[in-house]
Amino acid sequence: MESPLYTIGPIGYVRSPLTRLEDAPMQGDEGAPETWLELTPSAAQGLMGIQAGDEMIVLTWLHLAERDVLQVHPRGDINRPLTGVFATRSPDRPNPIGLHRVSVLEVAERKLRVARMEAIDGTPIVDIKPVLASNPSDR
Amino acid sequence: MESPLYTIGPIGYVRSPLTRLEDAPMQGDEGAPETWLELTPSAAQGLMGIQAGDEMIVLTWLHLAERDVLQVHPRGDINRPLTGVFATRSPDRPNPIGLHRVSVLEVAERKLRVARMEAIDGTPIVDIKPVLASNPSDR
Repeated sequence: MESPLYTIGPIGYVRSPLTRLEDAPMQGDEGAPETWLELTPSAAQGLMGIQAGDEMIVLTWLHLAERDVLQVHPRGDINRPLTGVFATRSPDRPNPIGLHRVSVLEVAERKLRVARMEAIDGTPIVDIKPVLASNPSDR
Repeated sequence: MESPLYTIGPIGYVRSPLTRLEDAPMQGDEGAPETWLELTPSAAQGLMGIQAGDEMIVLTWLHLAERDVLQVHPRGDINRPLTGVFATRSPDRPNPIGLHRVSVLEVAERKLRVARMEAIDGTPIVDIKPVLASNPSDR
């Protein structure tokens, strides 16, 4: 492969009562519990300005995903036809980056307490961005 | 740094008439041109099932970003107070992953023609996901 490779390091980790993949809902609106996002000490100052009530997009590294998969049966249902992973939200994909929209409930030093986060405990966080109300990307 | 590092490789590249960062709009609804997303041969079968009219989320690697920045003046306006990068959409951030919502206009072999993509020509693409109408993450 001639493509360049890029390196990403976690800016923090998900702290959640969900510890097993089989207990995690497939999407955040399907019963996800309240969760803490804990930033590393070196990344924490990047949180400045985030407040309770903010709507954020959290990018995670789905560390348990399979990366050599390009086609899947959506939602693991073998009755559904094989589909390219880029047409699905399967965690299995070449670069397993998870995308989660959450509501900030509480800001505490280097942690955010959030609603609607379906990732399991220990999932690495790679980025956090605000939802932009003015941006069709986020509506 | 004790954190683990993860490696990502491009699944494709942005092909756009925008070649200079200073010509690119800050957000996709601020005048972005029509753009092709060209997948690598090895990733192309992951597109199966994507059709014209689909709304997709494209993740890019903002390869010109500065990664050691944790606080910025939003939109480069020094009259706005320093803010944590995770509270902004600045490209400068520890893991410079860009998030773009696009409409698919045309599907051609291993390429997608899309509207509302503000990244410059040559920007690496790291993932593509569908917008889920049923998911508040995407609304």
